[in-house]
Amino acid sequence: MSSTRDIDALIDLMARLPGLGPRSARRAVLHLIRKRALLLTPLADMMQTVAATARECVNCGNVGTTDVCDICTSEKRANGEICVVEDVADLWAMERSGVFKGRYHVLGGTLSALDAIGPQELRIPRLIDRVREDAVSEVILALNATIDGQTTAHYIADQLEGQVRLTSLAQGVPIGGELDYLDDGTITAAMRARKSL
Amino acid sequence: MSSTRDIDALIDLMARLPGLGPRSARRAVLHLIRKRALLLTPLADMMQTVAATARECVNCGNVGTTDVCDICTSEKRANGEICVVEDVADLWAMERSGVFKGRYHVLGGTLSALDAIGPQELRIPRLIDRVREDAVSEVILALNATIDGQTTAHYIADQLEGQVRLTSLAQGVPIGGELDYLDDGTITAAMRARKSL
Repeated sequence: MSSTRDIDALIDLMARLPGLGPRSARRAVLHLIRKRALLLTPLADMMQTVAATARECVNCGNVGTTDVCDICTSEKRANGEICVVEDVADLWAMERSGVFKGRYHVLGGTLSALDAIGPQELRIPRLIDRVREDAVSEVILALNATIDGQTTAHYIADQLEGQVRLTSLAQGVPIGGELDYLDDGTITAAMRARKSL
Repeated sequence: MSSTRDIDALIDLMARLPGLGPRSARRAVLHLIRKRALLLTPLADMMQTVAATARECVNCGNVGTTDVCDICTSEKRANGEICVVEDVADLWAMERSGVFKGRYHVLGGTLSALDAIGPQELRIPRLIDRVREDAVSEVILALNATIDGQTTAHYIADQLEGQVRLTSLAQGVPIGGELDYLDDGTITAAMRARKSL
């Protein structure tokens, strides 16, 4: 290992990032030291800034630097539609597609009996409040197509039934997908939801 | 994308690290924001520290926080042997094995006519000085087994011939290696350097 305590400590911290192991953390730290002015110092400064300013939106759970996030305060977005996602990363993925112009609600996970995560641990009560308080016409459940995601979607649908139009993302063949590489569940779902041309 | 300028800027900087792309940089930044006290703030602080203190050893080229590195100043290590490596990462790899107890010399790359990297661009003159000034009995050329690495090894061997014992790392079958998966060059080298049992 490096002969120096601080550099070792930096490698250990970097190795705790998702996607980096000890070897790639060492590579990253050497790269940072070589690009000190261009990368290491700006990165350290920006981390300080984000550590000081990042917070969760009190309304929807999105990550931002204000108490209420830009999406919740934007006047260009439709008020009547709430897209429910598990995680901020999912919100970002939806935003990259650019297809949705309403508001979001980030649950912060999925229901899980095993991990003792109930509705109170997620942002589900707040979602129910939002549907009652705001003039919401549609709640789109954009949860992951996993067992936990779908269980959570069913729970939310039960809670909101009769109060609002509930929809979920369509399931089927992904764009560019080859049938030969798809799992049976996806093909079954695509077949059942087949459309007239 | 995130609605916030600073968070986006942090993602862009993180994506410039080796081994991280835009997607894994986003994942890493979300992880950092969630683990603010445990990871983001300590990481930012340690980056500031390393940015302020990291430097190259004036003697061997190793990275450390002092003008002359811990390995060069250690009294526990043998003076007579210098292990020549291309890069600090290679020095760290040698140190992890714990097999070598002498001093190092980091070239900072390999000779390359294509990239106009000559002996002056590397730390080769300093190596020749060290061999002359110090009582060096052996120079171990631990350069990568690539064409550039071996060209550089030959050049250094030419320069130091007759002044010191010159050795290089053995080539052969790696520990745990299966013949079926090895390239022809490795098998040829291992066969030529075969040993009596």
